[in-house]
Amino acid sequence: MNPATPLDALTRKTASQVVYQIFPERFAIGNGLSSAEKLAQAAYDRADVVKRDWDESTLNQPWGQQFYGGDLDGIADKLDYLQDLGITGVYLTPVFTAPSNHKYDAVDFFSVDPMFGGDAALQRLTGALHARGMTLTLDAVLNHVSDQNPWFKAAQAGDAAKRDWFSFRADGSYLCWQDFGSMPELNLSNGAVRDVLYRKPDSLVQYWLGKGIDNWRFDVAQDVGIEVAQEMRRCVEPHFPDAILLGELNGFSGSWFQAGGGFHGMMNYWYRTATLAWLAGEIDAVQMNRALADARAAYGLPGLLCSWNMLSSHDTPRLITTVGSIEKSRLALAMLMTMPGVPLLYYGEEIGMEGGADPDCRRPMRWNEAEWNQAQRALVKQLITIRQGNPALQYGDVTVLGDRLAGNALVFLRHTDQPGEAALVVVNLSNQPLQTRLLLPYSHWYDGVPLKDALGTSSDTKVQAASVLLDIAPHSAAIYQAYEPYQNYTFFKPRNRS
Amino acid sequence: MNPATPLDALTRKTASQVVYQIFPERFAIGNGLSSAEKLAQAAYDRADVVKRDWDESTLNQPWGQQFYGGDLDGIADKLDYLQDLGITGVYLTPVFTAPSNHKYDAVDFFSVDPMFGGDAALQRLTGALHARGMTLTLDAVLNHVSDQNPWFKAAQAGDAAKRDWFSFRADGSYLCWQDFGSMPELNLSNGAVRDVLYRKPDSLVQYWLGKGIDNWRFDVAQDVGIEVAQEMRRCVEPHFPDAILLGELNGFSGSWFQAGGGFHGMMNYWYRTATLAWLAGEIDAVQMNRALADARAAYGLPGLLCSWNMLSSHDTPRLITTVGSIEKSRLALAMLMTMPGVPLLYYGEEIGMEGGADPDCRRPMRWNEAEWNQAQRALVKQLITIRQGNPALQYGDVTVLGDRLAGNALVFLRHTDQPGEAALVVVNLSNQPLQTRLLLPYSHWYDGVPLKDALGTSSDTKVQAASVLLDIAPHSAAIYQAYEPYQNYTFFKPRNRS
Repeated sequence: MNPATPLDALTRKTASQVVYQIFPERFAIGNGLSSAEKLAQAAYDRADVVKRDWDESTLNQPWGQQFYGGDLDGIADKLDYLQDLGITGVYLTPVFTAPSNHKYDAVDFFSVDPMFGGDAALQRLTGALHARGMTLTLDAVLNHVSDQNPWFKAAQAGDAAKRDWFSFRADGSYLCWQDFGSMPELNLSNGAVRDVLYRKPDSLVQYWLGKGIDNWRFDVAQDVGIEVAQEMRRCVEPHFPDAILLGELNGFSGSWFQAGGGFHGMMNYWYRTATLAWLAGEIDAVQMNRALADARAAYGLPGLLCSWNMLSSHDTPRLITTVGSIEKSRLALAMLMTMPGVPLLYYGEEIGMEGGADPDCRRPMRWNEAEWNQAQRALVKQLITIRQGNPALQYGDVTVLGDRLAGNALVFLRHTDQPGEAALVVVNLSNQPLQTRLLLPYSHWYDGVPLKDALGTSSDTKVQAASVLLDIAPHSAAIYQAYEPYQNYTFFKPRNRS
Repeated sequence: MNPATPLDALTRKTASQVVYQIFPERFAIGNGLSSAEKLAQAAYDRADVVKRDWDESTLNQPWGQQFYGGDLDGIADKLDYLQDLGITGVYLTPVFTAPSNHKYDAVDFFSVDPMFGGDAALQRLTGALHARGMTLTLDAVLNHVSDQNPWFKAAQAGDAAKRDWFSFRADGSYLCWQDFGSMPELNLSNGAVRDVLYRKPDSLVQYWLGKGIDNWRFDVAQDVGIEVAQEMRRCVEPHFPDAILLGELNGFSGSWFQAGGGFHGMMNYWYRTATLAWLAGEIDAVQMNRALADARAAYGLPGLLCSWNMLSSHDTPRLITTVGSIEKSRLALAMLMTMPGVPLLYYGEEIGMEGGADPDCRRPMRWNEAEWNQAQRALVKQLITIRQGNPALQYGDVTVLGDRLAGNALVFLRHTDQPGEAALVVVNLSNQPLQTRLLLPYSHWYDGVPLKDALGTSSDTKVQAASVLLDIAPHSAAIYQAYEPYQNYTFFKPRNRS
C-alpha cells in the first residue's frame, strides 16, 4: 500500500469531477432551430459546406466539411440533462474560428466560430455552467495551425518576422503535423510564438481563462513538449491558480509527471489501451492489473487523480462498437468510474450510441428517448452516484490487488487517508465465478466491518481480519463499500479521522 | 518505469564500452614467432615449464605449468581484428611476474612478466590501444600472493615487519586463499600492506595507472571487502578520476553498491547465473525477468551500467559448451549485448570456440579462419553494431516487462532520458511463438511510431497507444528500435530533448 499522500484542495476538486466530452457541431442546436434553419445562417454560406439533416448518417460525405448545425447555445440548453446524469464539467473540442466542422484547424484563436454562436454564445454557456457549479474545459492546439491561418499565410508570403513562426526549409517545404501539409507546425522555439500562445496576458491561453473558462486541454502534448508545458504552467498558474492544464498523450504519461511542473494531468489513454485490450482478450489480468500499478507508480497520485480516463472520443470508435457487446461495455464503464482519475464520458455513450471510426463516431446526439438504451443510462447514472458518494472513488489512492489472484480479474482498493473511506473494486472478466479469499493490506477496514456491493449484484461480504471472501459472478463487477452495522458503536470513529 | 536518473560522463563512457577478455598466454604470440621459437627464450628456461605447440590440446598436462608462448606483443598485433569486431576495451588476466601461466600467483606486482614481454611490451600495447581510442584494464589480486613472493618469504624467514603482512598462527600455519597453501593471504588490516597495494603513489594500483593503464579489475572482491574498496576509491579517484575500479564477485552484488563509494562496478555473475540457468531450463521466465529487476533495484543504475556482464571466462566452460547448442548460445549473446551493463566477451567466443572447464577453456585462440564459425562472428559483430548505434542499449535504464507475460520470454525496455532513445528486447525461449499485445509503460514511443527488429528476424510492428503487438518466433530474439517515418514531421522533436 502506498503511504498516505497529502492532496491539495485543487487536486481533490479536480479529481471529484465527472467530465462530459462534447463535439459541439454534433451535440445540439440552440434556440429551437432545426438543422435546415441553422445551416441557413451566413456562417455556413460557403461553397465547400455540405449541409446535413440532424438524423442523416455522417458517412459518405467529406469528413471535415459536412455540417449539422450544433452550437454552444445548444449545449447550454442541455445542462439539465447533463446534471441529471451527474456530470460536473464539460469539455469541448475546439470552438475557435476555423473552416472545418472539427475546428482543429484554427484561423483565429481569439474568436469563437460564428457557426457555434460566436463569443457571446461562449459567454452564455460559461455563465450557465458556473451558475450550476459546473466547469468548462476548452481545447487548444499549440503545435500547429491551419495553412489558412493568417500567420502562416503571412509567413508564406515572405513576412520576415512570421517566417520564423514556422519551420521552412530552403526548398519552401515546411514542417507539418504528421506530414499533413494543411497543418503547418508552429515553431515553439520562437519566443514571439510562445508570447501569443501562453506567455502574455492576451495570449490564447490567458485570454480565454480571463474570459471565464476554467481549464485547458492541450492537443498533441508530445509535440508541444515537456519544457513548453513547464514554462506555460509557470506563466499561467500565478494568474489562474485554479485552472487545470491537461495534456493529450496517446499512451503512457509517466515521464510528464516525473519531470515536474508541467501539466496537472494528462489524458490517460494508457488506461484505455489496457481496458480495451483486456476486454478483447489481447492481454490477461496480469497486464491489466500492472497497468494500474505502473501508472500509479510513474504518474504519482496527484498526477494520476488529475488525469482524465476515457474509453472513447471523437478520435476513436464508440465504446459498444469497440468492445462488441453491451455486457463488456458495462464492465468498461464500471472501470472508468472507479479507476483513479477523472472519468471522461464521450457524449452519447450514456445512451448506448454506436459508431465506428471517425466520422461514424461523430454522429449527431440522439435526443429522441425512444432511441436510448435506458439500462445503459441507468448504469451510468448509478456509477456516477456511487462515485460521487464516496470520496475514495473520487480522490482516494489505489492499491492494486488483482496481481495476486489467479483467474481473470481486475481487483483494486481505493482509499483516502480517512478511516473507512474506501472501496474495493472487483471486475471479473472470466467465464467462471471468482471465489476466493482476498487478503487486504489496508488498516482501516476493521475486523467485522460489513461490505455491500453498491451495484447490488454480488452478495454481501464482511471483513475478516484484513481479508474478505469474494464470490463474484462471471462477467460482472462489484464495488464493495463498508457500512456501520451497529446502533451504539461505530467502527469509523470521529477520533480516528483527521 | 524508473524515473530518469542523471548519469555522469564517466558512467556513460564506461557503459558504452564492449570489453574483450584475454588470457595473455593463449591469445597470440608477437613478433612473428611460433610457439617453439618463443618458448626457446630464457624466460621459459625452467625445470617445471612444459612447452606446448599452439595447436596442441590443453588437457593432460600440469595446468599451471604448460606454456604456449602468448604475449602482449601478440595482442597488440591483433588490434585490427578486435576493432573490426567492435571491441572498445581489452581486459587482461594478470600480467605481473609469476611462475604460472595464469600469473595469479604474483612474485612481483611491479614488473610485467618477461614471458609476456616485460614492461616495454605493456607500454607498447597501452600505446597501441590508446592510439585507437581503446582502453586497457588489468587484473589485480589484493587478497593473496604466491608463497614464492619475496614478501612472504621474508615473513616466513622471520622479518618482523613483513610477518604482520600475513596472518601466521603460533604453530607456523598461515591464512591462505581457500586453503591453498601456495596462496598466502595478505593481511589487509595492516596499513603498510594497504600502502603498497593502493594508498601510496608508488602502490600497485597507482603505479600502473601512472604508467597509463586505464582501469583495474580486482580479483576475489569478497575477500578484499567493502571497506577496503571504499578506502581505495577515496585514495585513487583524486589522482585518476577516469579510472574504473571493478570488483569480481561471483554472485549478486547489491550490497556493494548500497554501501556507496567503493567499486564503480562489479563483474555481474548474477546475470550469468540467471541467463545460463534460464537457457538450461533450470529456472523459468519469472525468475529470469526478476533477476534483471532485482539487480536494477539493488545495484542502482550507475552501478549496474558500470558492471561487466559475462557468459564465460578463463574460470568457466565456454559458452557453447555450457549451453549445449549454437542456437542457445546466440540467444545468450543477444542478452549479453542488450542487458544493462558492459558486455565482456571472452576471447574466442566470437568464433564459436568450444571448451570445458579449466584448462580446456584456455585453449589457444584459433587464427585459422577455416576453423571459425563465421555465422557466430557475424552475429557478434551485428550485436555490437546495434548496441553501439543505440545509446539506450549502452547506458539506458531498464524496465522489465517480461514479468507480465505468460510464456517463456525475457522482455525488457532500455531507455535513456532522451525521447526516442529506447530499445525493446524480447528473447523468446519457448517452443511456441510469442504472440501477444504488450503494454509499454514508457512515455516517449508515441502512438504510431514504427518499430523494426534490428536483428531482422521478427516482423516490423508499431506503437499503438503505448502498446505493441508482438509476434516472435520460437527460440529467437528481437531488438526493436523506433524510426522516423515522415519527411516533414518528427516524433522525437529536438524540443522534447533535454
